[in-house]
Amino acid sequence: MVQTVDFAMMATALRYAAEGECNSSPNPCVGCVIVKEGQVVGYGHSQVAGGAHAEVMALAMAGDAAQGATAYVTLEPCSHFGKTPPCADALIQAQVSRVVVALRDPNPLVSGQGIDRLRQHGITVDVGVLSDVALEHHKGFFTRMILKRPWVRIKTAASLDGRIALKDGQSKWITGSASRSDVQRLRARSCAMITSIETVLADDPQLNVREFTVLRQPWRVILDSQLRTPCDAKILQQSKVMIITAKDSERRILLEANGAEVHVLSDESGERVDLPAVVSLLAQRGFNEVTIEAGGTLSGAFLQAGLVDELVLYQAPILLGEGRPLASFNLVNLADQYQPQVYERRMVGVDQRITLRFTNVQSVLQGVS
Amino acid sequence: MVQTVDFAMMATALRYAAEGECNSSPNPCVGCVIVKEGQVVGYGHSQVAGGAHAEVMALAMAGDAAQGATAYVTLEPCSHFGKTPPCADALIQAQVSRVVVALRDPNPLVSGQGIDRLRQHGITVDVGVLSDVALEHHKGFFTRMILKRPWVRIKTAASLDGRIALKDGQSKWITGSASRSDVQRLRARSCAMITSIETVLADDPQLNVREFTVLRQPWRVILDSQLRTPCDAKILQQSKVMIITAKDSERRILLEANGAEVHVLSDESGERVDLPAVVSLLAQRGFNEVTIEAGGTLSGAFLQAGLVDELVLYQAPILLGEGRPLASFNLVNLADQYQPQVYERRMVGVDQRITLRFTNVQSVLQGVS
Repeated sequence: MVQTVDFAMMATALRYAAEGECNSSPNPCVGCVIVKEGQVVGYGHSQVAGGAHAEVMALAMAGDAAQGATAYVTLEPCSHFGKTPPCADALIQAQVSRVVVALRDPNPLVSGQGIDRLRQHGITVDVGVLSDVALEHHKGFFTRMILKRPWVRIKTAASLDGRIALKDGQSKWITGSASRSDVQRLRARSCAMITSIETVLADDPQLNVREFTVLRQPWRVILDSQLRTPCDAKILQQSKVMIITAKDSERRILLEANGAEVHVLSDESGERVDLPAVVSLLAQRGFNEVTIEAGGTLSGAFLQAGLVDELVLYQAPILLGEGRPLASFNLVNLADQYQPQVYERRMVGVDQRITLRFTNVQSVLQGVS
Repeated sequence: MVQTVDFAMMATALRYAAEGECNSSPNPCVGCVIVKEGQVVGYGHSQVAGGAHAEVMALAMAGDAAQGATAYVTLEPCSHFGKTPPCADALIQAQVSRVVVALRDPNPLVSGQGIDRLRQHGITVDVGVLSDVALEHHKGFFTRMILKRPWVRIKTAASLDGRIALKDGQSKWITGSASRSDVQRLRARSCAMITSIETVLADDPQLNVREFTVLRQPWRVILDSQLRTPCDAKILQQSKVMIITAKDSERRILLEANGAEVHVLSDESGERVDLPAVVSLLAQRGFNEVTIEAGGTLSGAFLQAGLVDELVLYQAPILLGEGRPLASFNLVNLADQYQPQVYERRMVGVDQRITLRFTNVQSVLQGVS
């Protein structure tokens, strides 16, 4: 039976999960805590893909103390051999007496199998403790497993009157230094950053994490319908760059020689990159969360395509007047307005960070975005 | 000597002052509390102009109990005969023993005279208790007295991306019903509402207070450079309408016949209304606080003219994409951005009300805007 202490311990497991950010992608970043007689004897989170899973980390720390203990895991332990042996077996071998699970595995092919395996070996299993919080943490993995695309986030920085730049493109800096640091964390937990060729040409961004050390940098994905990315673009100086174009051309060889992966994904017109195909590709590549950092044209196109789950707006307390909009799209009727859920408002230095949700994470479980 | 209880009692006097909203204009809406032996024996606020001042209201309630009591007033009692006898004399006659004043009179010609008169009659006077809060309440009166113009506020309602309407003008409704009710209070405390002929032609607004009973409706001021206001405009159906034009024409007679006051105040071009002349006129008319409710063109013009003290933005959690901006102006450099002080953020229903200050009320005392 689920007790009050189980919620506290699962919250601890989720805290360890969050520490792992999204470094374990394509695996979910699971958290695990082992508790014996009221004491935490082991804890851990998933390591960079190919490394140990959370349960293994926690069991290693617990050692013999795991025997007869309770294990709290944010996601159902796996029951299959991947790059590492099944976690369910590790828990059985360690002779834990009870496992508390926040969420079942989202993959319908294996969902419940880890739990069944534990129960077959006489281990008590309770499922559903803090499942809402766990789903929020694992939303990228669940979206990819169930909806076959990553959790797509737009990050944008604008003035109170919705401008991300002046008419001529001046945009350094709209928001304060606290917001810019905060964006580094968004990048760190993203499997990929998506931008447009226009942003590459105008701002020459790197879109990587620079303020602190990370176990893995996000991929950088450039949507570049005409393959115009310059070979000396800063973004090409690091590895893990993907360029998605609408038309193949000779420049592909040049860009590949500069380390970029090039994909051709055109829409029906043959002129533009096909956005649904892009997100499918990114899911196939194992990206759980991706973040778009681009101008209003690309942000508007993703919104209109219905492919945005979340918009994180850093709003600076300034007025810019005429300038470039944060998202370009044209409504015929006021009733067609985007009315996302305001998931969170938070001050970040002098700016306000407003997190808007177009997708309810609960509805992802039902396969709806 | 000022004691802790004096702050509590002055806060009470300010609460009564706020209840009077700005109904006493052109007089400031003063609050007064009379306290004897720890008990409030009288309170009041300024009545509609020509009616009793706060001190007289409070003394009338206190009766004989005023003798030997302490009077708390948010503004120095007047010492001159206006439409009513001097309040200083009323306090002397009632034989109060002490008067606590938040702020000296802002008019340099009479400042300190009321206080001197009280002291000459043996009454102890302490000045400066909660002066910051009192200045915030009396900011309109102080701005008019010191800067010779009203406190100018822009009220605007926009989406998160800074749109007040779609391209074709659709704007009913951007914000929620709670915000629209809140705006009624802003109107109630305004001596005048200012709008543009474009807004009159497009939306046919009334710009009056309709959700509750008020002692006096605000004046409605239309900036109408070509005298195009239609005689059947709803705004003309009530009295107290002022039309300010750049060019006199025969339509003036027609509009005056419909009850409007018409003024000609053109800038050097002779084509546009002169905004500094407008605010001077409004100050001469005794308006302490005025509120602009118009489109981005007029809001932007007032901002660029440096005539805005406060912008109250009701921000709805929606995205509108292409559309009309909340304030139209063009910056050459990002460094020229308007960086007002964020005076307050507050949720009003689902919307956020952000109050921006371009003028620090403290600097008004120094004669600076």
